[in-house]
Amino acid sequence: MSSDRLIYLPLGGAGEIGMNAYIYGYGKPGKERLILVDLGVTFPDMDGTPGVDLILPDIGWLAEHRDQLEAVFITHAHEDHVGAVAHYYNQLGAPIYARAFTANIARRKMSEFGHPERAVQTVSPWPEFTEAGPFKVGFIPISHSIPESSGLVIDSPEGRVIHTGDFKLDENPVVGEPFDRALWEEISAPGVKALICDSTNVFSPLAGRSESSVGPEIEKLVAGSKGMFVCTTFASNVARVKTLAEAGERAGRSICLMGRAMRQMIEASVETGVLKGFPKTVSPEDAKGIPRENLMLIVTGSQGERRAASAQLANGKYQGITLKEGDTFLFSSKTIPGNERGVIRIMNQFSEMGVDVVDDSSGLYHVSGHANRPDLEAMHKLVQPQILIPMHGEHRHLREHVKLAKSNRLNGFLAVNGMMIDLSGNKPNVAEYIETGRTYLDGSVKVGALDGIVRDRIRMALNGHVMVNVILDENDDPLGDPWCEIMGLAETGHSRAPLVDVLEEDLSQFLGRAGDRTLADDDKLEEGLRKIARQSTQTEIGKRPEVTVVISRMAL
Amino acid sequence: MSSDRLIYLPLGGAGEIGMNAYIYGYGKPGKERLILVDLGVTFPDMDGTPGVDLILPDIGWLAEHRDQLEAVFITHAHEDHVGAVAHYYNQLGAPIYARAFTANIARRKMSEFGHPERAVQTVSPWPEFTEAGPFKVGFIPISHSIPESSGLVIDSPEGRVIHTGDFKLDENPVVGEPFDRALWEEISAPGVKALICDSTNVFSPLAGRSESSVGPEIEKLVAGSKGMFVCTTFASNVARVKTLAEAGERAGRSICLMGRAMRQMIEASVETGVLKGFPKTVSPEDAKGIPRENLMLIVTGSQGERRAASAQLANGKYQGITLKEGDTFLFSSKTIPGNERGVIRIMNQFSEMGVDVVDDSSGLYHVSGHANRPDLEAMHKLVQPQILIPMHGEHRHLREHVKLAKSNRLNGFLAVNGMMIDLSGNKPNVAEYIETGRTYLDGSVKVGALDGIVRDRIRMALNGHVMVNVILDENDDPLGDPWCEIMGLAETGHSRAPLVDVLEEDLSQFLGRAGDRTLADDDKLEEGLRKIARQSTQTEIGKRPEVTVVISRMAL
Repeated sequence: MSSDRLIYLPLGGAGEIGMNAYIYGYGKPGKERLILVDLGVTFPDMDGTPGVDLILPDIGWLAEHRDQLEAVFITHAHEDHVGAVAHYYNQLGAPIYARAFTANIARRKMSEFGHPERAVQTVSPWPEFTEAGPFKVGFIPISHSIPESSGLVIDSPEGRVIHTGDFKLDENPVVGEPFDRALWEEISAPGVKALICDSTNVFSPLAGRSESSVGPEIEKLVAGSKGMFVCTTFASNVARVKTLAEAGERAGRSICLMGRAMRQMIEASVETGVLKGFPKTVSPEDAKGIPRENLMLIVTGSQGERRAASAQLANGKYQGITLKEGDTFLFSSKTIPGNERGVIRIMNQFSEMGVDVVDDSSGLYHVSGHANRPDLEAMHKLVQPQILIPMHGEHRHLREHVKLAKSNRLNGFLAVNGMMIDLSGNKPNVAEYIETGRTYLDGSVKVGALDGIVRDRIRMALNGHVMVNVILDENDDPLGDPWCEIMGLAETGHSRAPLVDVLEEDLSQFLGRAGDRTLADDDKLEEGLRKIARQSTQTEIGKRPEVTVVISRMAL
Repeated sequence: MSSDRLIYLPLGGAGEIGMNAYIYGYGKPGKERLILVDLGVTFPDMDGTPGVDLILPDIGWLAEHRDQLEAVFITHAHEDHVGAVAHYYNQLGAPIYARAFTANIARRKMSEFGHPERAVQTVSPWPEFTEAGPFKVGFIPISHSIPESSGLVIDSPEGRVIHTGDFKLDENPVVGEPFDRALWEEISAPGVKALICDSTNVFSPLAGRSESSVGPEIEKLVAGSKGMFVCTTFASNVARVKTLAEAGERAGRSICLMGRAMRQMIEASVETGVLKGFPKTVSPEDAKGIPRENLMLIVTGSQGERRAASAQLANGKYQGITLKEGDTFLFSSKTIPGNERGVIRIMNQFSEMGVDVVDDSSGLYHVSGHANRPDLEAMHKLVQPQILIPMHGEHRHLREHVKLAKSNRLNGFLAVNGMMIDLSGNKPNVAEYIETGRTYLDGSVKVGALDGIVRDRIRMALNGHVMVNVILDENDDPLGDPWCEIMGLAETGHSRAPLVDVLEEDLSQFLGRAGDRTLADDDKLEEGLRKIARQSTQTEIGKRPEVTVVISRMAL
């Protein structure tokens, strides 16, 4: 009989920045009692996932082992950590534990899906802890770009694991708890088996700056601006929203929050008491009556999202408000790689309106919520784990983080999604490879990333689509001519005749030449028609389209 | 009778970085003799132009006025300046003038299209000039990131215009002519009516660095690397390719160029004499036999292009060569906004192979080819034009460049694509707005950006596609049941029955309910069927697909 073991198994987040989902388990191999840390989403893009609404981790393995699952712990309320809780509640069913602010956000999600809000339980931070099977889990406050972010102390009979969650070392984070070195020393003192550590900013060479450093710069900017002042940041960065609002208030401006996410986050912050002393705000309706030089809008859409307030203002109007020459628009944010096109589009639209756009290229108006390279090293030294496993990073971040650890003589270990790591004993081992991947929320259904559905859409986007129809009688003789419909293809090509006419003529000739065997065999006939449609389109317009062939056989 | 006037009319490049095409004209209004400066392309992306091969400026206006066109002048051989010459040669027909290296590249393009190479004429730089109707045009050497880049002196009876082309102020550009201040002073001395000026780096606050500054850093990096050393840069940056090759040679490595564009550019540089003393290279075939620590590959694909050498190496193999643990890959380039996803994909693939990826985040291994803000100011002061018109920029760059000019008491004027500016008299005026836009090369045909073809492809990518087929007899009675084919949609939805079955059932019911008027009317019937198909798909899977309806009426 084999002995108990402690395992770590990332399902998401170890090989990407997004859709975090980390499993820990303790017990006999195959019978471990499990906990899940975070259950987030990632966002689709036109390149690889057109039309997809959300990307979720594939939790197939965990759903199969749901009887072993004791609990879900959510470190903080960013979408890449909490976004999938409601989507997967039916499959997992386990209770969800989080601190008050995170729980507030999680409950809003549960309630949108009609799930019981009581499934989300509010817990207090360390020294309190939650028992979950063989685990004792404590929430350790740590600074990040959202209130009440926490690392987790995960104690099992095999020792202590610290899961940092997303973090930075900020002793003056404006809203929420400052980084408390003494507390982190305290939890590290008994000895830490493994540190599972945020890797996002491992390539940023300079020590991170405090959230409190941006306030004075933003104040100067607001004070020096003449028209309306509009700013955007991540809605969940409550500290930043507060900083922006206070800068506006000091400049004698009324503050108006715009965009659903922005209002929800502030609401949740006030309800849970994490936000105090937020300046009074006015409604968009009232804002319309305020002279523009006395008004500050704080809006959603720092990433250029098409439906957010910033994009709508850039398109001309949002909730009755229009920007114009002399106004200022501040991106108090960084552009996440991949979102550049959308952000630049908005900047140019504002430029056309005569609005002065200010972004963070100066480095003055935004700070990251993640620990930079020197901060990661400080965390390593503070915790002094037996093993360092990087998480929350693309492969290149994880690899660099391991190298960084090794350069400081720490035992770094690279684990990517699907690697079940046995942390028992003296060194980590890969116990098993689990099938992981991505699940797409596509409309209202979930589809597998490898199902081919989105691949087919990409193909239609690249190649266009031809539909071929043929009707045959009971003797396999064509009834009339074949006909075509095209979508996403040029209407005329090199012959200057309509493409559809050329295709129909070529297909008709093919049918005329086709032997009885072909005409009697749907597969052969379809293959022949598809080939002709592709070839003729290639000849006419130089594209090889997707082709759908419909063969109708009439028994009259 | 109105008097002669001097006009400037950008068709492309003033409102985007790409597809440069600037018209100058002189003569009676509507009868100006015209010249075209540059005729470039821009590159498609999945967001807005999936499946498109190239984006060209819409030259409809110029083609209508081709009788007035005297000549085309190409400032340098970057694709966004020369890429469309062969695509539009039939529509324009005018002779093309360029310096030797640029002409070499242009002739390669002409010959690929079967156009006469003699249409491209090689000209010598200032003080020689080319007469083109009322214009005298001289090529003024200036430093940029490609050999023989030139500004243009454009003299007309209305005075001198200087068109900078793309430029930086580099007195030590490694390959090609250094920036020659005395020459620029000389051409500016007689007084300059208008300076049409590159705006790309107007937001870069520090003075630009010389191409020669990267060599020593690259040498250090190569010297310190152990396995194979692979590097990528823009193929046309011949100076950089030389710098890389020389660094490799000094470290005792054999140099192998990979990728068609890379070899073509070096070939053109050698043929035209702009490149001398390039280290000896080995073929990919020979490279395979060389120990990896003695080999340097210089490859195409710095922007993550899927078919380029770098992407293929990242996918596993290119021309028999495979990278592995301990090798180094250097991006001696910057990532153009919008290309981040592709570049990051490659970086992660290399990371998975154990290859160390070095990019320019340190600022050591790349310098821009464009003038930064202080360099633009230096150019303004040097030329002291009556009017400054920014070009080669998105709207935000042009606007900022005008603001910069005004802050230095220069008369800056913002002109975007389609604005015909009358430069005669004391101040510029908008004479007319010309319809401009983009033309897509889609396969082998050109389609208008507003034709809806690519829009339809995007819709299929976002929404998926349903095809509905119905056959009716001569009495308008349905022959059999309607049937569907889906593409890019989940196969089953909420009812757990196949989506196609659900659709066919709902469509069948609709047909059963439909009155004679509907059944007899193709438009009504199509509308009804489309509506049902959309609604049922929405109910089943939460998506509203594109629907193609095919109605066949059989006269038996």
